[in-house]
Amino acid sequence: MKYDLINDDLINICKTATVQELEELSEDIRQFLVEKVSRTGGHLASNLGIVELSICLMRVFDSPRDRIIYDVGHQSYVHKILTGRAAGFDTLRQYKGLSGFPKHRESVHDAYDTGHSSTSVSAAYGMAVGRDISGDDYNVIAVIGDGSFTNGVVFEALNNIGANQTKVITILNDNGMSISRNVGALSKYLNKVRSSQKYGQAKSSVKSALDSFPVFGRPLSRGLRNSKQKIKYSVIGEEGHLIEDLGIKYFGPVDGYDIRNMTEILKAASEYDGPTLIHVITKKGKGYEWSEKYPRKFHGIGPFDTQTGETASSSSLTYSKVFGETLTSLADRNDKIIAIAAAMGTATGLMPFYEAHEDRYFDVGIAEEHAVVFAAGLAKSGYTPVVAIYSTFLQRSFDYLIQDVALQNLHVIFAVDRAGLVGADGETHHGVFDLSYFSMIPGMTVLAPADGYQLAEMLEFAADMDGPVAIRYPRGSCEGKHLRLRRFRGGNSVISEGKDVTILAVGAMLDECIEAAEKLRANGIDAGVTNVAVVKPLNTRWSELDTRLVVTVEDNVLRGGFGESFTAVFKDTPYDIINIGIPDRFVEHGDIPSLRRECGIDAESIYERTIGYFAGK
Amino acid sequence: MKYDLINDDLINICKTATVQELEELSEDIRQFLVEKVSRTGGHLASNLGIVELSICLMRVFDSPRDRIIYDVGHQSYVHKILTGRAAGFDTLRQYKGLSGFPKHRESVHDAYDTGHSSTSVSAAYGMAVGRDISGDDYNVIAVIGDGSFTNGVVFEALNNIGANQTKVITILNDNGMSISRNVGALSKYLNKVRSSQKYGQAKSSVKSALDSFPVFGRPLSRGLRNSKQKIKYSVIGEEGHLIEDLGIKYFGPVDGYDIRNMTEILKAASEYDGPTLIHVITKKGKGYEWSEKYPRKFHGIGPFDTQTGETASSSSLTYSKVFGETLTSLADRNDKIIAIAAAMGTATGLMPFYEAHEDRYFDVGIAEEHAVVFAAGLAKSGYTPVVAIYSTFLQRSFDYLIQDVALQNLHVIFAVDRAGLVGADGETHHGVFDLSYFSMIPGMTVLAPADGYQLAEMLEFAADMDGPVAIRYPRGSCEGKHLRLRRFRGGNSVISEGKDVTILAVGAMLDECIEAAEKLRANGIDAGVTNVAVVKPLNTRWSELDTRLVVTVEDNVLRGGFGESFTAVFKDTPYDIINIGIPDRFVEHGDIPSLRRECGIDAESIYERTIGYFAGK
Repeated sequence: MKYDLINDDLINICKTATVQELEELSEDIRQFLVEKVSRTGGHLASNLGIVELSICLMRVFDSPRDRIIYDVGHQSYVHKILTGRAAGFDTLRQYKGLSGFPKHRESVHDAYDTGHSSTSVSAAYGMAVGRDISGDDYNVIAVIGDGSFTNGVVFEALNNIGANQTKVITILNDNGMSISRNVGALSKYLNKVRSSQKYGQAKSSVKSALDSFPVFGRPLSRGLRNSKQKIKYSVIGEEGHLIEDLGIKYFGPVDGYDIRNMTEILKAASEYDGPTLIHVITKKGKGYEWSEKYPRKFHGIGPFDTQTGETASSSSLTYSKVFGETLTSLADRNDKIIAIAAAMGTATGLMPFYEAHEDRYFDVGIAEEHAVVFAAGLAKSGYTPVVAIYSTFLQRSFDYLIQDVALQNLHVIFAVDRAGLVGADGETHHGVFDLSYFSMIPGMTVLAPADGYQLAEMLEFAADMDGPVAIRYPRGSCEGKHLRLRRFRGGNSVISEGKDVTILAVGAMLDECIEAAEKLRANGIDAGVTNVAVVKPLNTRWSELDTRLVVTVEDNVLRGGFGESFTAVFKDTPYDIINIGIPDRFVEHGDIPSLRRECGIDAESIYERTIGYFAGK
Repeated sequence: MKYDLINDDLINICKTATVQELEELSEDIRQFLVEKVSRTGGHLASNLGIVELSICLMRVFDSPRDRIIYDVGHQSYVHKILTGRAAGFDTLRQYKGLSGFPKHRESVHDAYDTGHSSTSVSAAYGMAVGRDISGDDYNVIAVIGDGSFTNGVVFEALNNIGANQTKVITILNDNGMSISRNVGALSKYLNKVRSSQKYGQAKSSVKSALDSFPVFGRPLSRGLRNSKQKIKYSVIGEEGHLIEDLGIKYFGPVDGYDIRNMTEILKAASEYDGPTLIHVITKKGKGYEWSEKYPRKFHGIGPFDTQTGETASSSSLTYSKVFGETLTSLADRNDKIIAIAAAMGTATGLMPFYEAHEDRYFDVGIAEEHAVVFAAGLAKSGYTPVVAIYSTFLQRSFDYLIQDVALQNLHVIFAVDRAGLVGADGETHHGVFDLSYFSMIPGMTVLAPADGYQLAEMLEFAADMDGPVAIRYPRGSCEGKHLRLRRFRGGNSVISEGKDVTILAVGAMLDECIEAAEKLRANGIDAGVTNVAVVKPLNTRWSELDTRLVVTVEDNVLRGGFGESFTAVFKDTPYDIINIGIPDRFVEHGDIPSLRRECGIDAESIYERTIGYFAGK
């Protein structure tokens, strides 16, 4: 490698090096990324795609004075390397290690923490308005992929930015992909723009395009007018009109691997006195054989062999896989079943469904709000939509769960994947609020399987029900340690009785609870475990539990979760109650055992809390 | 009046009458609406604006086979009259009376229940997809105002509809207004379209425009091709390109009072084999002197004098007014304060702020998600944004409260108006989830004033804090019956001590609780009341309460509310606990005393529950 990525002053190199040197730096960064991520796992393809763009941003802009916001943020690895965090990549996404997302607490160069998609433009607008009121003149730049760009909140932000002519630089990182292949009319439109232009070639239409703009706005800045002669970039008035109708100056498309051209366009945008959108064409997985070939696989990946691109094959069955396969066979028999994904069809296990029932599979894009209303419309026309969305992303649909689904008591099934602690993605991705936000909604049935068998049974059960049903299940393996011990059959199951303590284990917390109970029994406490598969409605017969202590255990925040609702209803029973769940603070990234330990919801913690109760008596 | 609106078969009249007769019908409906709403109060201006459009929809389409969805739904009065519900207008928005919003349980002609804005296009898409899979051929029509049209979920829906070329008819009811004056780049764009066209005149550009379309799609239907000769309407390829770029056929603009032209265009859309958008120009408040003059005042109005347009002046001070005035004077002294509204600047009391500090006032449009992220961006640049949104609408921002504000621990103040039961607007508008959805978020401070004095003190207190703060307060009068009895000073206040029972009254439930306590004391129970102004963090000293029973009272759902969190924490104290709050079902519209009684949260119910406890001892 030409550069020492850990010790060199890469920001300075970005600013002063020649284009050729920066191409070499790009090469080094790609090699570094492939090597490091092959060991730790992480988001690879999107980062390989924007090496040059990230370099050009540091070259043209003056971070941290200028604020660069990476939308979603899993593509901020190059930015992290450039801003002095290369040494951290050995601990990437590990407990107490480097985060896989922008974190202001890691670096002042992370201007805004992201994790969920499509917030960058709104946040940039807020920062830019603050700047203007203060009379400052730094730049605010949002870097957003074409997948994230289809989310409505981006449109809401552009609608404001265009009207107010606030100087925000939006960089549309267009690789034609969301996490999977991008969908929607906007995507088709962008494709048309791409294919109608040889974007590598500089155009001479600069003058006319600049003269025809802005629509509502201010005169061109002197800086830009002066630079007309010297800059060479392609600027497209005609094809960008979807953006320009909103009052935003469109530049592009520009080749995301042409450092010279990108530098010039970024400079032009920084000198332009109004909002701009720069359309950069990139390729997901760029520069590494296997990620170019399989960009979807290399979006988020575990450790892999750099030579072969092969990941260590995991033999364990996942909840997502069970969900996808069960739903597919359900749909074989029930032609009312419709599957809805929000840009995560593969990750939620829906590919078998897509292959078997393409006409009943809908990927709406990164549009969780719309996904739920769309489902409500389908239910109103007699279908049974199954909406598969991660717990954390479904937070976006909260209002629509209430207004569109529950108020009309529609039969919509929510397959709430990645519930509980998710591990390496960290605080923006833990699904630890869903039991609370679902349970407060009238008429909602809330289920939580303890393993794959239960998930499959619950899906079949939910398909035969009326009204809305949420089934929430964790990331990863669905092979409970006590397979086939328990069945769902529409209710909770008593695994073992306990005269001293009954542990109520919500969903997949069952294994931790069984382990805790075994240890309690080994220490002379008569401990039993009941599997809570039905979180709502609450089982009224729990008032009759013949036990001294009930311990509720859930991988959800305590506030509004299962334990609190249990306590509120059964507080006047003879037994005492302890609620164990995620405490009232955000939980960082790391391996799940460490995080469970930290949150006090692992077997050891359950044991300690319980034995402590009896010691105190 | 020419027509008997209560007994005539208006649907049939719409279909068979001449244009002139329908103009007379429109006249009758306007007169009816003004008379009825002048007595009951309700949404007037938007309904007056779309009388002819609603008639044309019934004329051209075959409801309920064809599905007509009114976005938001407060403009569905004409539709209700046409579909046999005129007799209900004497009880409009009253307890057990006619709802002010579409309700399928009222009529099969209400295809989809709405209340919150901008869901109609997504829902229509869902219904249309269901129709297509079933092989049916009915029409699905979304009627949406230009204000609602700026919300991102509409864009998400159009993005899908355009790509899939699903036949959905979207009617853009463009009156240039949201509830207040519409904002944003899209609004400016629509203005440009309007002003560039004399839309009353039929154009001869029909052929070329039809030939140039669709962009991605299918051939024109035979029906439309045949009708080319006979139909006369203005169709605009050039000005509609913002829509057509998304693959949706744009028709318009058309005069919303020209029944003949609208009929023709609607027929053309019904015959067109793909998605269409019909741009209809209307005037809010049309045809009644005072609502034309003051459309904002007549958007939602109480009873008024039809001759003078004057409403009975209410002398009582509202929470919204106190909020607006306090924030304005705060901003006089603190130049970091910024006010953010989401199309409800007037209703949330922000007009004085706008007048005094226009440069620090931002109305983002109906875009609650963006509003919160925008606020987060402002906070990151050193400002103290105050986001004023109704409790029920802020449900849309749930994910952004967590991800953008709380995770970064940003100092954003949420002025959560219309918390608790709101009355006449009913089940879609009650603000009964906010204590739950705010309290589960780590780092959030949640406050609830009992009167206007407390609200003012809390705002000042919140401005001096760090991190996110929500202040939730009800609709209407802030003049507590016990004015000046209590102050906030950053904590809760003991109004009276009670050896038998301590009633913990959350925010504005205080008056009901004081009344209940008085009645309890009159019946020999030593009852005290404490005003709970700080819902989160929970006051740990309540463990020391010297009382036999604690009754928590809140106008929030029990699930996840204050009472449950109180019980979870203090369940092991010597006193017993009763939680009183909104039960686990949706609450309809009506006057607030009736609704409180029905929910069991009025003084009488609190008294009964408490006396019942002591009777049982």
